Amino acid sequence: MSVYLHDIPLAEALQRLGEALEAAGLGGILGTEEIQLDVAATGRVLAEAVFARLSSPHYPASAMDGYAVRSEDTAGALPSTPVELKVATDQLRENAHSHVYEENQAYTCYLDTGDPLPDWADAVIPIEQVESLVTAGDGFSPAPDPRQPHIIRLRAAVTPWSHIRPVGEDFVATQFVLPAGQVLRPVDLGALAASGHDRVLVARKPRVAILPTGSELVPLGTAVKPGDILEFNSLVLAAQVEGWGGEATRLAITPDNFNLLCARVREAACTHDLVLINAGSSAGSEDFSARVVSELGKLLVHGVAVRPGHPVILGMLLPERTGCERPVPVIGVPGYPVSAALTGEIFIEGLLARWLGRSPFEPVIVTARLTRKVTSPGGDDDYLRVAVGRVGEQLLAAPLARGSGVISSLVRADGIAILPSGSQGLPAGADLQVRLYRSLAELERTIFAIGSHDIALDLMAMFLSRRRRRLSSANVGSQGGLVALRRGEAHLAGAHLLDPLTGEYNLRYVGEYLPGMAIKLVALVGRQQGLLVRPGNPIGLRSLEDLQKPEISFVNRQRGAGTRVLLDYHLDRLGIKPQSVRGYTREEYTHLAVAAAVQSGRADCGLGIAAAAQALGLDFIPLFQEQYQLVIPTVYYDDPLLAPLRELLYDPTYRQSVAALPGYDVSRMGELVADIQ
Amino acid sequence: MSVYLHDIPLAEALQRLGEALEAAGLGGILGTEEIQLDVAATGRVLAEAVFARLSSPHYPASAMDGYAVRSEDTAGALPSTPVELKVATDQLRENAHSHVYEENQAYTCYLDTGDPLPDWADAVIPIEQVESLVTAGDGFSPAPDPRQPHIIRLRAAVTPWSHIRPVGEDFVATQFVLPAGQVLRPVDLGALAASGHDRVLVARKPRVAILPTGSELVPLGTAVKPGDILEFNSLVLAAQVEGWGGEATRLAITPDNFNLLCARVREAACTHDLVLINAGSSAGSEDFSARVVSELGKLLVHGVAVRPGHPVILGMLLPERTGCERPVPVIGVPGYPVSAALTGEIFIEGLLARWLGRSPFEPVIVTARLTRKVTSPGGDDDYLRVAVGRVGEQLLAAPLARGSGVISSLVRADGIAILPSGSQGLPAGADLQVRLYRSLAELERTIFAIGSHDIALDLMAMFLSRRRRRLSSANVGSQGGLVALRRGEAHLAGAHLLDPLTGEYNLRYVGEYLPGMAIKLVALVGRQQGLLVRPGNPIGLRSLEDLQKPEISFVNRQRGAGTRVLLDYHLDRLGIKPQSVRGYTREEYTHLAVAAAVQSGRADCGLGIAAAAQALGLDFIPLFQEQYQLVIPTVYYDDPLLAPLRELLYDPTYRQSVAALPGYDVSRMGELVADIQ
Repeated sequence: MSVYLHDIPLAEALQRLGEALEAAGLGGILGTEEIQLDVAATGRVLAEAVFARLSSPHYPASAMDGYAVRSEDTAGALPSTPVELKVATDQLRENAHSHVYEENQAYTCYLDTGDPLPDWADAVIPIEQVESLVTAGDGFSPAPDPRQPHIIRLRAAVTPWSHIRPVGEDFVATQFVLPAGQVLRPVDLGALAASGHDRVLVARKPRVAILPTGSELVPLGTAVKPGDILEFNSLVLAAQVEGWGGEATRLAITPDNFNLLCARVREAACTHDLVLINAGSSAGSEDFSARVVSELGKLLVHGVAVRPGHPVILGMLLPERTGCERPVPVIGVPGYPVSAALTGEIFIEGLLARWLGRSPFEPVIVTARLTRKVTSPGGDDDYLRVAVGRVGEQLLAAPLARGSGVISSLVRADGIAILPSGSQGLPAGADLQVRLYRSLAELERTIFAIGSHDIALDLMAMFLSRRRRRLSSANVGSQGGLVALRRGEAHLAGAHLLDPLTGEYNLRYVGEYLPGMAIKLVALVGRQQGLLVRPGNPIGLRSLEDLQKPEISFVNRQRGAGTRVLLDYHLDRLGIKPQSVRGYTREEYTHLAVAAAVQSGRADCGLGIAAAAQALGLDFIPLFQEQYQLVIPTVYYDDPLLAPLRELLYDPTYRQSVAALPGYDVSRMGELVADIQ
Repeated sequence: MSVYLHDIPLAEALQRLGEALEAAGLGGILGTEEIQLDVAATGRVLAEAVFARLSSPHYPASAMDGYAVRSEDTAGALPSTPVELKVATDQLRENAHSHVYEENQAYTCYLDTGDPLPDWADAVIPIEQVESLVTAGDGFSPAPDPRQPHIIRLRAAVTPWSHIRPVGEDFVATQFVLPAGQVLRPVDLGALAASGHDRVLVARKPRVAILPTGSELVPLGTAVKPGDILEFNSLVLAAQVEGWGGEATRLAITPDNFNLLCARVREAACTHDLVLINAGSSAGSEDFSARVVSELGKLLVHGVAVRPGHPVILGMLLPERTGCERPVPVIGVPGYPVSAALTGEIFIEGLLARWLGRSPFEPVIVTARLTRKVTSPGGDDDYLRVAVGRVGEQLLAAPLARGSGVISSLVRADGIAILPSGSQGLPAGADLQVRLYRSLAELERTIFAIGSHDIALDLMAMFLSRRRRRLSSANVGSQGGLVALRRGEAHLAGAHLLDPLTGEYNLRYVGEYLPGMAIKLVALVGRQQGLLVRPGNPIGLRSLEDLQKPEISFVNRQRGAGTRVLLDYHLDRLGIKPQSVRGYTREEYTHLAVAAAVQSGRADCGLGIAAAAQALGLDFIPLFQEQYQLVIPTVYYDDPLLAPLRELLYDPTYRQSVAALPGYDVSRMGELVADIQ
């Protein structure tokens, strides 16, 4: 197979697709259907503008519970000279003017809210504004049945048309109600009903077939072995398609077999409006998608200059090749989950919007300051996932993991910033335009934590989510956290930096990294550090000295991590040179990542906490006890944003769940270790 | 019946409900269910925090299509001194270190993206970075099958762990994936699947019964007669409930019959988690809801100090009265559609959020300047519906119709501003906090039109919605529109103000109202004004002079309307005194409202345009031809926001649809009548 035909700019790819759609007569709404106006109409898209068939109200209606009157009959009513009206029976409602007067007595009749106004009346007096009497001239009679014959007394005249809903107050028949393209909301259903509709013409839902391909794919629920890949892109794509107003069909996993793929794609094309092939869109030895598209139609684009997600295929399946009635567009969706989800957002949402006749979704865009330098491959638009939060006055965007296989980064992302091709990247502090995935209100409730990783922080995130706070934490090591605090890029940092001279934690480093800043140093947990080894300790490790043995491979933490500081301190104390530790330069960013490296056999051992060993079923050789603390600038410590976090440190349930972690000591949790002015 | 028990503040009402729920054990999540991880899981709410069951990837995987190597075998490779490796067959993948070397030749094997890394390898070289040779020392051989035995040549050494996805790159087993309370999005389904889940524990959907009551209610699709009210609140409420994560049951319409209502509520309570009674929640003669709630349980609240929507009932149905297994909360929802929909937002959304364990929805809140004075009843929180748009630098909020029966105002609303009880109202120009119903991006595309109403503007709104613009128009009459332009509260105003001295339209008024402002005066339509009468002209009307006949009643337009200016001019010219026209003081705000008043018999005639007569099947007595123009400040005329509107004036389809209106002349449409500097 060849490499990509060509990585073309996104705008050009979209244009080629748009032109092909126009040429195939698929540039607009696919079709319409008339549906019942019921709950299932919510989210459907109006296929035509709707005008009122009926005025609402369709008759002059009483706006209150009260008495229908001719306003002229109330003329002259004053507190001192009341007017009395005789309440007539129900049939009066229907009667003409001539019947209203009898023995020189003006009549009235009772109306409930919504009752039609009798022809002879031109106003309603609310029931609260009249006095009820048993007979004329009598005193007040408490709450008679307002429908029964009695007398009412008024002490103020009413103006014509008071408390009446005129015909068409809401909609006049023929009036414009809603435009074509409206995505129906609950109140829209009400407006359609009020204006006399019980059926509604909407755009037909585009039918989208999703074909997962790859001999390595296995369905969810399979007990996996190395090389098996759980197939879930079709799930994400189908959920996207349905959320955007389409109808998704997930087809069975198809192995890498060219003829079989052709058959499946052909079959899908004849019964759907769009076929998604996932994956095989790259240029590997078993990537058949481009060949399949060429075989069954026209390959429009193979490779788009966006990252992640560049090996996208856009094509048009042609009736003369498929035997279907119509041409059907096809998208080869890249296999990495982040690429697949972004392909949905970039290509599929807009296509469905076009076919439904609605506006494409518009993200809220905010300007935020980049917390870390990012580099970017020059040739592609780079879709950078970021966490967004407000720290002080500043909206910040912290870049998340960039691998296209890391779907957790998309789950954690508060938004996407697009670095245009040719930008090479951006320095820390640069202004970014971020397309938000979450509401700004939600982001305003986000606590930004940065620094060293600890499992107590993961649990804290969980507990805070029940207290209307989000904890967004970035793992950059203890020293990295202090640097971020200095730059105003987080509300707090987790740190466990040992000062070998005093045996204290963090205090000296805070003085060095954050001079002049008012800081609260708060105890979180004491925890055990030691060596993580595979179960049964097959390499017979006993101490740090053993790391010098050439047959033992080690996995390290990154520079600036508290655990790395601890290791370096002890290696130095023991006179062990880093070069003599095999794997010293291999760095991981969390305790669990170190544990995973040991578990998978990529390293024999690593330094980390007991809880990480337990989590992955490893053995643990305890070496040191250390203090993990929160470093919180006083200005944020006192902020209402952090109040739930401060409370949490004394919450028995939280403390219990942290104490249950092996090697964890919560006895000092919440204690103010130092208050630096 | 008595009046409301008491209009209590919203916070107190919510607190009473909250306490009753806690006491009944209904303060939190109602229950859980385990569901398949498929598309239907989207939107469901996680009932517990989810941790990874499987690392992702669960084995060290190749991140690229390429060749597995031991990095040490590539040491020393340089452009001038390449290293050659022998590509071995598939079984090498499984083999141990000892098999790798043969005849002193280092081996490699080909891997597709995602293939597991063989135990002996510690790096992958992307296929693009190697040269393929048929045999050692040979020249480049184009694209052989990379799996077949051949030789690859490298011209750079690789560092260990290059192009490998380590175990747990995305999730390490046991790692926190998503918190309880997470509303599942498509990417969340992917994260759950990637971390080894194929089922997921979610909150059970709360079951909500909606009982429409009222002898006047008829189902959608009924041919209505006066007094019939189409029942659609249950549709709006059901759509809201489903959108907020509940499961709605719409029950049959129940007439105003106390015993029947009790029976229906009892039945609903035994099979649902919440019962909504709509309406009968007020204090009228047939408002039974409060009695039903008292009969079957405890009435907690009757009347909340919010407007619209104050006659809300909150109660708890008790098992000893209903015979059901559990207590069930009940809400009496007011009958007016705006009140009903707002009751949903205020009470039901929060209740469902609580029962689902998710955060309540948080609207985006913006500050906008109030365009018109609003008065407010002192005692209630006043939920003011507003249109929001940006005019110049200013975000503006224009109050919409305030009647609780006017659902069109809720459909048109871009947001809600709450005027707290005791405020008495706010002056024009005051800053308002608006809770938005639409995205800010959508509002930035809104063209604010104000002034005289014309049907060509309704059609314009329809056409603009296909061009990514919204037209939000307020009908305040021609003069009102000019005043709004002066205050910077709209992008354009429709006006048809006749200058009797010159016979010109608008020019003199623009000079008077907008002195010193650069203005473009743009022709929209010529149109016919005349008298609207019922079909067959039963009152035998011929001219304006006939309005003096005492048996003829007239309906007028409001002061400042161009049509009113026209009438007053001609009455004056004919020497007719306004007092001699019966109904002169009765004002409507649009042509269609005048037509509706005539059609319903509330007036015999009115002055208006031919199109309004035709729309409602009225007869039309033509009197005058007039010019309706757009008054556009030059600064907005040139703004890209208005570009689609300027183009529209020359769009043949738009012109045709306007020209099809009776009495409309589009020959001058788009013409620049005056360019005032």
